[in-house]
Amino acid sequence: MKKILVLHGPNLNLLGRREKEIYGTLSLAEIDGRLAKFAQENGFQVATFQSNSEGDLITSIHEAMGRYDALVINPAAYTHTSIALRDALAALDIPVIEVHLSNIYRREEFRQKSLTAPIAVGVISGFGVHSYLLGLQAAFNCISA
Amino acid sequence: MKKILVLHGPNLNLLGRREKEIYGTLSLAEIDGRLAKFAQENGFQVATFQSNSEGDLITSIHEAMGRYDALVINPAAYTHTSIALRDALAALDIPVIEVHLSNIYRREEFRQKSLTAPIAVGVISGFGVHSYLLGLQAAFNCISA
Amino acid sequence: MKKILVLHGPNLNLLGRREKEIYGTLSLAEIDGRLAKFAQENGFQVATFQSNSEGDLITSIHEAMGRYDALVINPAAYTHTSIALRDALAALDIPVIEVHLSNIYRREEFRQKSLTAPIAVGVISGFGVHSYLLGLQAAFNCISA
Amino acid sequence: MKKILVLHGPNLNLLGRREKEIYGTLSLAEIDGRLAKFAQENGFQVATFQSNSEGDLITSIHEAMGRYDALVINPAAYTHTSIALRDALAALDIPVIEVHLSNIYRREEFRQKSLTAPIAVGVISGFGVHSYLLGLQAAFNCISA
Amino acid sequence: MKKILVLHGPNLNLLGRREKEIYGTLSLAEIDGRLAKFAQENGFQVATFQSNSEGDLITSIHEAMGRYDALVINPAAYTHTSIALRDALAALDIPVIEVHLSNIYRREEFRQKSLTAPIAVGVISGFGVHSYLLGLQAAFNCISA
Amino acid sequence: MKKILVLHGPNLNLLGRREKEIYGTLSLAEIDGRLAKFAQENGFQVATFQSNSEGDLITSIHEAMGRYDALVINPAAYTHTSIALRDALAALDIPVIEVHLSNIYRREEFRQKSLTAPIAVGVISGFGVHSYLLGLQAAFNCISA
Amino acid sequence: MKKILVLHGPNLNLLGRREKEIYGTLSLAEIDGRLAKFAQENGFQVATFQSNSEGDLITSIHEAMGRYDALVINPAAYTHTSIALRDALAALDIPVIEVHLSNIYRREEFRQKSLTAPIAVGVISGFGVHSYLLGLQAAFNCISA
Amino acid sequence: MKKILVLHGPNLNLLGRREKEIYGTLSLAEIDGRLAKFAQENGFQVATFQSNSEGDLITSIHEAMGRYDALVINPAAYTHTSIALRDALAALDIPVIEVHLSNIYRREEFRQKSLTAPIAVGVISGFGVHSYLLGLQAAFNCISA
Amino acid sequence: MKKILVLHGPNLNLLGRREKEIYGTLSLAEIDGRLAKFAQENGFQVATFQSNSEGDLITSIHEAMGRYDALVINPAAYTHTSIALRDALAALDIPVIEVHLSNIYRREEFRQKSLTAPIAVGVISGFGVHSYLLGLQAAFNCISA
Amino acid sequence: MKKILVLHGPNLNLLGRREKEIYGTLSLAEIDGRLAKFAQENGFQVATFQSNSEGDLITSIHEAMGRYDALVINPAAYTHTSIALRDALAALDIPVIEVHLSNIYRREEFRQKSLTAPIAVGVISGFGVHSYLLGLQAAFNCISA
Amino acid sequence: MKKILVLHGPNLNLLGRREKEIYGTLSLAEIDGRLAKFAQENGFQVATFQSNSEGDLITSIHEAMGRYDALVINPAAYTHTSIALRDALAALDIPVIEVHLSNIYRREEFRQKSLTAPIAVGVISGFGVHSYLLGLQAAFNCISA
Amino acid sequence: MKKILVLHGPNLNLLGRREKEIYGTLSLAEIDGRLAKFAQENGFQVATFQSNSEGDLITSIHEAMGRYDALVINPAAYTHTSIALRDALAALDIPVIEVHLSNIYRREEFRQKSLTAPIAVGVISGFGVHSYLLGLQAAFNCISA
Repeated sequence: MKKILVLHGPNLNLLGRREKEIYGTLSLAEIDGRLAKFAQENGFQVATFQSNSEGDLITSIHEAMGRYDALVINPAAYTHTSIALRDALAALDIPVIEVHLSNIYRREEFRQKSLTAPIAVGVISGFGVHSYLLGLQAAFNCISA
Repeated sequence: MKKILVLHGPNLNLLGRREKEIYGTLSLAEIDGRLAKFAQENGFQVATFQSNSEGDLITSIHEAMGRYDALVINPAAYTHTSIALRDALAALDIPVIEVHLSNIYRREEFRQKSLTAPIAVGVISGFGVHSYLLGLQAAFNCISA
Repeated sequence: MKKILVLHGPNLNLLGRREKEIYGTLSLAEIDGRLAKFAQENGFQVATFQSNSEGDLITSIHEAMGRYDALVINPAAYTHTSIALRDALAALDIPVIEVHLSNIYRREEFRQKSLTAPIAVGVISGFGVHSYLLGLQAAFNCISA
Repeated sequence: MKKILVLHGPNLNLLGRREKEIYGTLSLAEIDGRLAKFAQENGFQVATFQSNSEGDLITSIHEAMGRYDALVINPAAYTHTSIALRDALAALDIPVIEVHLSNIYRREEFRQKSLTAPIAVGVISGFGVHSYLLGLQAAFNCISA
Repeated sequence: MKKILVLHGPNLNLLGRREKEIYGTLSLAEIDGRLAKFAQENGFQVATFQSNSEGDLITSIHEAMGRYDALVINPAAYTHTSIALRDALAALDIPVIEVHLSNIYRREEFRQKSLTAPIAVGVISGFGVHSYLLGLQAAFNCISA
Repeated sequence: MKKILVLHGPNLNLLGRREKEIYGTLSLAEIDGRLAKFAQENGFQVATFQSNSEGDLITSIHEAMGRYDALVINPAAYTHTSIALRDALAALDIPVIEVHLSNIYRREEFRQKSLTAPIAVGVISGFGVHSYLLGLQAAFNCISA
Repeated sequence: MKKILVLHGPNLNLLGRREKEIYGTLSLAEIDGRLAKFAQENGFQVATFQSNSEGDLITSIHEAMGRYDALVINPAAYTHTSIALRDALAALDIPVIEVHLSNIYRREEFRQKSLTAPIAVGVISGFGVHSYLLGLQAAFNCISA
Repeated sequence: MKKILVLHGPNLNLLGRREKEIYGTLSLAEIDGRLAKFAQENGFQVATFQSNSEGDLITSIHEAMGRYDALVINPAAYTHTSIALRDALAALDIPVIEVHLSNIYRREEFRQKSLTAPIAVGVISGFGVHSYLLGLQAAFNCISA
Repeated sequence: MKKILVLHGPNLNLLGRREKEIYGTLSLAEIDGRLAKFAQENGFQVATFQSNSEGDLITSIHEAMGRYDALVINPAAYTHTSIALRDALAALDIPVIEVHLSNIYRREEFRQKSLTAPIAVGVISGFGVHSYLLGLQAAFNCISA
Repeated sequence: MKKILVLHGPNLNLLGRREKEIYGTLSLAEIDGRLAKFAQENGFQVATFQSNSEGDLITSIHEAMGRYDALVINPAAYTHTSIALRDALAALDIPVIEVHLSNIYRREEFRQKSLTAPIAVGVISGFGVHSYLLGLQAAFNCISA
Repeated sequence: MKKILVLHGPNLNLLGRREKEIYGTLSLAEIDGRLAKFAQENGFQVATFQSNSEGDLITSIHEAMGRYDALVINPAAYTHTSIALRDALAALDIPVIEVHLSNIYRREEFRQKSLTAPIAVGVISGFGVHSYLLGLQAAFNCISA
Repeated sequence: MKKILVLHGPNLNLLGRREKEIYGTLSLAEIDGRLAKFAQENGFQVATFQSNSEGDLITSIHEAMGRYDALVINPAAYTHTSIALRDALAALDIPVIEVHLSNIYRREEFRQKSLTAPIAVGVISGFGVHSYLLGLQAAFNCISA
């Protein structure tokens, strides 16, 4: 059975508690539940991990090597500032899908640049929790093809 | 029954014939077939239109008012240059989903800027024909919610 | 009797139907009616033309040569992107007046640059339908002087 | 009877004496005469003031509060450099119309930026003395509506 | 017999009628005549097409596939603004030669950037009608080699 | 007894009358009263001066030499445009404290740059009238140390 | 009794040991002592925390929710690079005050930009340990108002 | 007898009192004395004027029309910020010489740009009081030629 | 016996496993072995530490104070983004040598800027494991001089 | 008989020996032979000169005055860096044609700017040795007209 | 007797022969004659040297060490491009005066930057041959003081 | 026996005589002696050449082809300005090592860009004469591997 790792970047542990007009009302646990249900329905496994620490996210990417078939990542604020995260992703030999809850094109200028997106297969942004679900679908397509 | 319009921008009539390493091997007719099949399976209708003309695309967006429930658009090169297309989309009162076959973050600097994306609900890029299918799914989510 | 051509750029056919807080509530036909009435009251003729197509606008400018005494143009989105429109205007030997319904200085950064304005005698922006009327007045002043 | 204040910025006291190919041959007194005549014909009053001093222009704007129904201003060189003038205009609760004798889009790069225009209802530039007359007309439209 | 398509971009239908100090005194028909004569003398065929429409130029490039051995194009204003034209040219598998009547290095800043030139074999600019003739010669060299 | 001069820049004479959501509801006289009371309570003297004129502010800075022990200044709009004010402050040999009523980091791009701040000991912004009181406290700390 | 959290960013644990000409001679423990004394004298409580880790600072901000009435933060180097820290602060619903020991306007170009300041109520910089004390005062003003 | 006006910009009244390592030890009165002596020795007259006010400097330039044969100006800080001063100088029909006490190329980035220099015949900077004397010599050369 | 600390930044724990064409085939343990051998041969001691965490690297730099004679650091991705790391290095009073495995001048634009290099004695890049060995040599030169 | 000078800039003496995929396989002597043959066939004379020295190229341009009827120059790397070469060409009163072996629009960003092209009649780039031959033809056209 | 070296940069050997409207009608020999006469009248010696070669100018600056008391240099085009020349001047321990025949502020953007001026005592530009004479005077002032 | 060429760029002939705080106290001859000794000890040969002329450096690079096994170059000021030098180095088929005496990251902005470094195997800067010795070591490593 295929296994997909879903990584949540900084501040996403606050989901459902902060700025709901931007990020929606679901908590991270509820989102993770939705992802698990989606995976189960489609016959694959999903694991999730959240951290506010750039270093811990990098280490979790390193540890994904050889253990997962695809990676779905919402790098949140690190999307725009972390070359180290990009380098970690570039070292992975499995498909990487980047997702964002909000449409980053509608937000501040400094969120328009993505350091990680050129490393990903593709990017999905703006659909709230559906960004994750569409991302899982896209990842599943990649590893089923 | 919900109706979704899918618009293909300039040069997409060449799909399957040009630069297949970037854009894939499916012809536009084959993609349209896939979209129709997906719509049928999910209980909605899809119409498609392609044009190389900025003006014709704008006019087709105007004509979508009151006739479709959502719009999926791959503005292709006009993504990066057409404020007129952006203005047409901004006048629509139905959800707009922007899709791209290739991951535009991996391409030339001048393709990094999207004039239309801030008008869209969200953006999906990099998954080839799956960008369209995920886009249809996203559009269907929007109008089913 | 002096004849003035008024050209309306892309999306202006939607006037009165879209984003009324920016562009006002008059339809394009109503605006054209106001312009005709103003012309009649001041003893000159006015013709109007709208197109969403950059190429058709260019061609209509070419055709104005030798047939009109002045041109009032609202290039809308093409103001900011069309060097081709600028070149067409530069080839005209009659006065060109640029008008905008909204005050473009209050809008997005990419609307701050006008490619066509340096070719015009002058620019009037921000007064809604009055921008057109003041523009006609200005054009009439130019050709009456 | 409605009252409109017309402010002339720095160096405009030289009108008719300097660079006539850019600014025209009328003196400031002659322009003021034209404005007074136009006001009289249209049933409102006009007052005019010129200063080379940024501070005095700001103070005169402050003093306009509660005494005039609209302001027509040609900020001249301060258009491009004076945030203080912008702040003074932003504090006014009557319509502000910005006018320029020359078409500033045809001039030096540093004249392309207007700090005051985003505060104005609209901008008229390039028509010589007619910029003032059209500006008065526009102001009158605003306060008559 | 080798066949070469020559495409003329927007406003070139005005040649000989506008801004002769920049673009010369020959009409487009006269230039086309010179090109046909040159082709005949050198034993190949030439076809020409002019349009003010970006979309029509793109479509004519698509239609050139499999029908011509080389393309000589003067994209005029679209040189600097049309990514769509660039994409159409990039899909062609025959040599593309870009030509300009005027030396674009001597003109406005916004004409210094060419979106299409990186797709071409080479660029010739500044020699008036001779730019076309040298371009035809260059195209003929490419397909004769 | 230590003496501190407080300078108010352009438009601050309008305090309490304009844009209260940005600048608060206290008039300049009320603020000056609060400053005098604070000074009295802490055993020093305060003098205040407001001008809309860059030149008068410069001259008042010159005159502060040898007469005051510290300067608290809210340069308002001149913060961002006046090198002359900066030069005047640089010539002072007493501590200069820069204060702003609003948090300038939340405002327009052109207010992000401060020409005067590098000359000051420090900067306090965003606390309304408290910016002045904290600034007086800071100035008093400097000259009491 | 009101409670205020004071966060110290990276390298501030070195205070009193490094670059004393920029940051002063007090150790972090001494500064914390001064803050506690000031809080006690003014009838509120203060807690302090220092970390070199961006992730730990973010987590400590999350944990402040519902437990403190205001936050005073010296983000040090993260001021200029951490969007993640900004996002964490934006999620807080208590007043945030940003402080800096040195006047950042006097330092390197890359320290001129603050990602966190637009989220704060206000900013105080340049007064050494007094920046913290004035910041505590400002925070206390906010929550006492 | 030829007459030359020497204008001193803002803060130059402090000469000899502030930042002597940059501007030298001579007071403005002493410099004016040196200029008068130099004029007398060379058979022409010199008048001098200093102001901290941009508006007063502009007015003094206006008043120089028809009364002086040349203008030597040290615009000081206004060199870099005043388009209004530039416009006043551009209206003069006598030679303008720009001088600076310090070598502005050695100073802050914002002093590298001169708005007034393109209007002047030439510029002399870096020689302290000798900049004025060389400037007078240059002005005298211009009007003696 | 002199002691030198060698710090390895983020992702360097993957050496020999990822992107070998850029970073070479040696594992980090093998590199550390080479460094220890080199140190032993030259009569000094070397300690090494790797972390993916910016905060841990900063803390390890702090802990080096008073315990090592020199520092050789490969900041990897943090070279280009971490002002905090720069500040930590600036607080050290021992020589710092910056090394890179690859020639960063040959890589992406965002790797061209080094925030840490201005703090170092010197920089060595492009020689694979030899960058470390040459760096150790350089550090040894510094502390032997 | 008309005489044309052909100047080859730095490193062109290596032609046929270096980077043949960019510059082709012909040696400079072979190219010069082709140019001489072309000249002879068309009834004019050609002289050629190559230097790696900016100064020598400038001097050879000076010496061309009065001795040649046209200049064809491939400034190579100096195209992008030498204002001195541009000044030398600007002093010539014969037509200058700029040629490049490779299509410089396809190369590094720093080769996109040409300092010399605005001085030339026109530019030909991208056709290998044919760039020279077309350039000679263009030069001959200029002096035969 | 004091000795001053005057260096003339590239293309200045053409003086009096090229672009006289910019550079004047005097030949370089005539200018050198004027300089010698001026030196003689003022009791010092002058030597002059012109070269089109950056390297030769650098070498002549090196050779000036210990042999001249001051240097007057017109670096011409190298002003804007030669860091090497700047470095040579920075190594000199005698006063350097930079002069330009034309007012470089009136010319192309790329002539606005001077790499050499920050090394000079001062700069004189715009006075034709008088720039040299005023520069000699300034140099003489420096070494006589 | 392997042979390595060491090239010294402009102004390096002054070593030991100018700006010793930046470049050290050793003369170029002494450095060359150190390099020869190092080569001898390591069993290879070294030749050295210095020139102030860009053209001569290029020519000496050309002449190195087939005669040396590696090149160590300190391009000095030409590092930042010479595309011609870069092109010469790119044509070499032996390893190139770039060295700098000073740490260029600590110096002026215009020294931050290296045109030659992307052509080199690697870069060593900041270690004074040791930069050369480490560079020789690096070159020797390359050709011994």
